[in-house]
Amino acid sequence: MIGPEQRGRVAVVLVRSRNPQNIGAVARAMHDFGFTDLRLVNDYTVPFEAAQSAIDAGEVMRAARHFTGLTEAVADCTLVLGTTAVGERRIEQPLDTLDRSSTRVAEELAKGVEASPRVALLFGSEKTGLSNEELSYCHRLVTIPMHQHAGMRHPSMNLGQAAAVCLYELVRGSATPVRERAAEPAASMGEIERMRVLLAEVLEAAEYRRHHPANSSEAHLRRLAIRLAATRADAPVWMGILRQVLWKLGKPARETR
Amino acid sequence: MIGPEQRGRVAVVLVRSRNPQNIGAVARAMHDFGFTDLRLVNDYTVPFEAAQSAIDAGEVMRAARHFTGLTEAVADCTLVLGTTAVGERRIEQPLDTLDRSSTRVAEELAKGVEASPRVALLFGSEKTGLSNEELSYCHRLVTIPMHQHAGMRHPSMNLGQAAAVCLYELVRGSATPVRERAAEPAASMGEIERMRVLLAEVLEAAEYRRHHPANSSEAHLRRLAIRLAATRADAPVWMGILRQVLWKLGKPARETR
Repeated sequence: MIGPEQRGRVAVVLVRSRNPQNIGAVARAMHDFGFTDLRLVNDYTVPFEAAQSAIDAGEVMRAARHFTGLTEAVADCTLVLGTTAVGERRIEQPLDTLDRSSTRVAEELAKGVEASPRVALLFGSEKTGLSNEELSYCHRLVTIPMHQHAGMRHPSMNLGQAAAVCLYELVRGSATPVRERAAEPAASMGEIERMRVLLAEVLEAAEYRRHHPANSSEAHLRRLAIRLAATRADAPVWMGILRQVLWKLGKPARETR
Repeated sequence: MIGPEQRGRVAVVLVRSRNPQNIGAVARAMHDFGFTDLRLVNDYTVPFEAAQSAIDAGEVMRAARHFTGLTEAVADCTLVLGTTAVGERRIEQPLDTLDRSSTRVAEELAKGVEASPRVALLFGSEKTGLSNEELSYCHRLVTIPMHQHAGMRHPSMNLGQAAAVCLYELVRGSATPVRERAAEPAASMGEIERMRVLLAEVLEAAEYRRHHPANSSEAHLRRLAIRLAATRADAPVWMGILRQVLWKLGKPARETR
């Protein structure tokens, strides 16, 4: 949905995140999905050594910027989205599920460079999420739809996993084509008929037909042969097997007799 | 896409996962999205204490089953999907990106109870992924579309994050409706006109109109007032502010003079 060239216009803003492992996990998810702009808001300097050592997170972590306040952290952003587990909290901003938010982000970024669109995606602290004061910076809120377990507190996701899911949703559908296996040619109906005949000979030779005539009709065997010969490459393999079985049963295939 | 009642028919199978933190993270993601069937394939018993202590993972971890071989682990499954980063490896199975796989899973589960559909989602070891022998159990392969960084090895995701993204995609679109904020009533045009008049008085009193007549036209001020009064609750607030400014400028609002 959001092309690779637009991902530089999406900032991931971690507010009061204090767990270096989680920060590293967010950076790794950003790296995995092609995002680069990580902003950390903390009123004191967090030691990042542990985060920087996270696999694949190095580049993103090195470019991360530190802010002491949210005002400065989102000053250049034209759309600010706050992630929330919602729960029992009263919310003042319009709330979207993640897939809808992704569309809004794409619409904002589609405004083009002259509008200087820049989107901030805010994540709160691991323990408390975003405070009401922090949510007041948000144009809209985002929630990842989670399963509500009966009688349990409202679920909240691990920070690194929540970031991975959000960023995946942002790039979903814009995937560069995967290296597909070459389309497998299908077996021709001529090959399938030859298989069907061989199969009939095997059932005859094995005295299966005598015991199960209903399962040995031409139509039934043809349907079986179609499923056996799922690909053109499979057909000669199966025919070799069937011929060998016939030979072993002392009734070599008629076509080769 | 996959309803809550169908999620019990999806097994997450971790093959040769040895990091209890990662196993715990997978269990937590399963809990978050309402999945319960975790299967661990290892040729020796992994100590799970660390995994069981993971937040929200306890229930899923306690129900997890241990298998010594993949044959037994997927014996009751009718569709086996193997996750892979693809990379340079030659693949023998058809490959889907995650969103397409999700549709296939939904189609399989839609076959209904009489077909006993059960889907296995396989994740390989953190270091090497699934081996070719392990991939041979798979009907199809799944890949999460990731960003290919120039000159870097093909990316692979952290196991806990990959599981979270896959399970999110499976439940995506089946979200229970989120608790929406009550629709905000819009300000009436009558209120907006009163605001527009007050705004004109402020610009007059502040001698702004004299310096910027083009910005002070009735139509221009009406457009400004419409955007100011984004909601019905905003309108009286703004009118109070404008009246106060007029009073302070020594030109109390005409309507109240």
